[in-house]
Amino acid sequence: MHLITRLSEFIQSRLDVFLKEQQRSLEELGDDHAPMFDAISRFLTGGKRLRGQFLALGFLAVDSVTDDEPVSGSPLARIVDAACALELFHAAALIHDDLIDQSDTRRGNPSIHRAFAAQHAGQSYRGDPERYGQAIAILAGDLLQSWADELMQETLDSLPDSTVRRVARAHFNRMRSEVAIGQFLDVLEEQLPAFADHEEQLERSTRVLVYKSAKYSVQAPLLIGATMAGASPEQTRALSNFGLPTGVAFQLRDDVLGVFGDEQVTGKPSGDDLTEGKRTVLVTLAREQLPPSPKRLFDELHGTADLNAEQVAMLQRTIRDTGALERVERMIQSNVGIAREALADADLNPEAVRALIRLAEFVADRSA
Amino acid sequence: MHLITRLSEFIQSRLDVFLKEQQRSLEELGDDHAPMFDAISRFLTGGKRLRGQFLALGFLAVDSVTDDEPVSGSPLARIVDAACALELFHAAALIHDDLIDQSDTRRGNPSIHRAFAAQHAGQSYRGDPERYGQAIAILAGDLLQSWADELMQETLDSLPDSTVRRVARAHFNRMRSEVAIGQFLDVLEEQLPAFADHEEQLERSTRVLVYKSAKYSVQAPLLIGATMAGASPEQTRALSNFGLPTGVAFQLRDDVLGVFGDEQVTGKPSGDDLTEGKRTVLVTLAREQLPPSPKRLFDELHGTADLNAEQVAMLQRTIRDTGALERVERMIQSNVGIAREALADADLNPEAVRALIRLAEFVADRSA
Repeated sequence: MHLITRLSEFIQSRLDVFLKEQQRSLEELGDDHAPMFDAISRFLTGGKRLRGQFLALGFLAVDSVTDDEPVSGSPLARIVDAACALELFHAAALIHDDLIDQSDTRRGNPSIHRAFAAQHAGQSYRGDPERYGQAIAILAGDLLQSWADELMQETLDSLPDSTVRRVARAHFNRMRSEVAIGQFLDVLEEQLPAFADHEEQLERSTRVLVYKSAKYSVQAPLLIGATMAGASPEQTRALSNFGLPTGVAFQLRDDVLGVFGDEQVTGKPSGDDLTEGKRTVLVTLAREQLPPSPKRLFDELHGTADLNAEQVAMLQRTIRDTGALERVERMIQSNVGIAREALADADLNPEAVRALIRLAEFVADRSA
Repeated sequence: MHLITRLSEFIQSRLDVFLKEQQRSLEELGDDHAPMFDAISRFLTGGKRLRGQFLALGFLAVDSVTDDEPVSGSPLARIVDAACALELFHAAALIHDDLIDQSDTRRGNPSIHRAFAAQHAGQSYRGDPERYGQAIAILAGDLLQSWADELMQETLDSLPDSTVRRVARAHFNRMRSEVAIGQFLDVLEEQLPAFADHEEQLERSTRVLVYKSAKYSVQAPLLIGATMAGASPEQTRALSNFGLPTGVAFQLRDDVLGVFGDEQVTGKPSGDDLTEGKRTVLVTLAREQLPPSPKRLFDELHGTADLNAEQVAMLQRTIRDTGALERVERMIQSNVGIAREALADADLNPEAVRALIRLAEFVADRSA
């Protein structure tokens, strides 16, 4: 069976067991919190499991595995808790992020705050449905963040070498701080009255892309996994040099999907980044090419919450016509190339390397 | 010097150092996030440090300490990170809680979401100030939660015994899950259309009190600290039997302050729990004594956001007149008595026991 599929299934099974254990251990608190548990559980069945997979592949690249080995007996069993931890952490981040961005949907379903606001409105509850939805989203995210930490520590505690434990935890700690600050910078960017000068804006947009996404989604998970397997400095360097450009390609694709994505596939409204006024690298590159008057019109519409379909299509066309889309597509391919190169002569398990490159190609070319 | 004062100061110094270390280690992300760091730093200089102190005293009760020993050379240095971790976690919980409750103030200052909404409104920022304040409060809480975990693990990693590490962490993990569920139950309670029958309501209100507060604020910190010192089953039992009633007394006092507290001292508007419609044990006991018609009037006003001063005074008088206030005062004293009793013959460090009893009396009798 395909290694990536096996990883996904293995992560899902462990998450299912973990949630059942938590539910059982918290039984004495009654069952009023069942709706929150159910929502968390549903939320955790979706998604691409990228972070868990990158952690697992970082580990396997350094450790060893054969495709025929049964997974439960494989080295993977030793770090599946850590892989699940990243998935729990990411679920927490998404739930909070949807609240911050006031997103109505996630993967085609209502976001957590919307789902609970709707549930509130359907009962004879007192108080404000919106505030209730907000409260549950905050608490569900907090709970998931604690659980992430709990599972990460399970794996760390099982590692015999104290230096390995310390370094792997340092990567995890830094990842969490960086993504929180990265998200802060992203939110701040949307508030600033205008785009900065081109060079400065590109630097700012790139910083958000790197910290909120590239390091968080790819590089950090890889480094945590590789460290857990006892990676040498050379192996760490190779995976790190693969991880950053892969993460950049991942987020550049996200920027493209945020403007051109198909709602039926992404589960998010088409042109979402345009109505939210995200100052992505894609948008920054497009603006640079516009003469003053179209640029003013662009800025006028970009970040308007109630853009109609025609206006969205107009902005999409503008971005395409400037050549920015093509340029970003080239940047994506070039980053994947650099990533591939980084693993070319590395002393890593060849099957894991093949899986990593397939995964990098997938994140760069995905349509959702 | 008084042990409790020394503990507080020791915790504060370590927090100051930790924040500086974090700031330095995140320098490469620029300095746009300085306002969030500053707000976190200010937030962490206030407060009673109860949870950190209970952890430290739980540790010292089992370990040993003399009042004259310089603190930096004392056993305390070994667990100050864990004590700070609880303070960081609590700061995260308060920031999120203020957002959930839409509280304008915390310790007499604007709450984090309000402070950043005000900052937004004072700039030429785009977007909605409220949403910006909300975003920053969510992210600041998330960051603090990660840091709490980071510091807790510092202490855990330094402990030589793996069973001690595992059990202490299990207490920390359980504490975090229980407080999140406890807060959920608290939020849910406020939404339910009416009070339940007296017995059921008392059970529900008590459950919130126990999990959201008594275990979280007192019992769990004590057990984490005691475990870290290698407590025997008897020592653990004594501290646990002291911690729960002390925590109950702590929260019953909070309920009293939520209705009768002086805004100048608490830093929260007087009668806050009445406008929020909190179904506390105090309010539940008061309602039980009311004849049908005053009870209907009480229910009509309780939970009305725009109560005027006269209406607040009327509800306060009603609660007092039913004898519920006096009854809760007796419950507080009785819980402190049970707590004191639990330590009477325990094999624990006498100075730490004295400090614990002083702290229990303080939390039961405080005016803020």
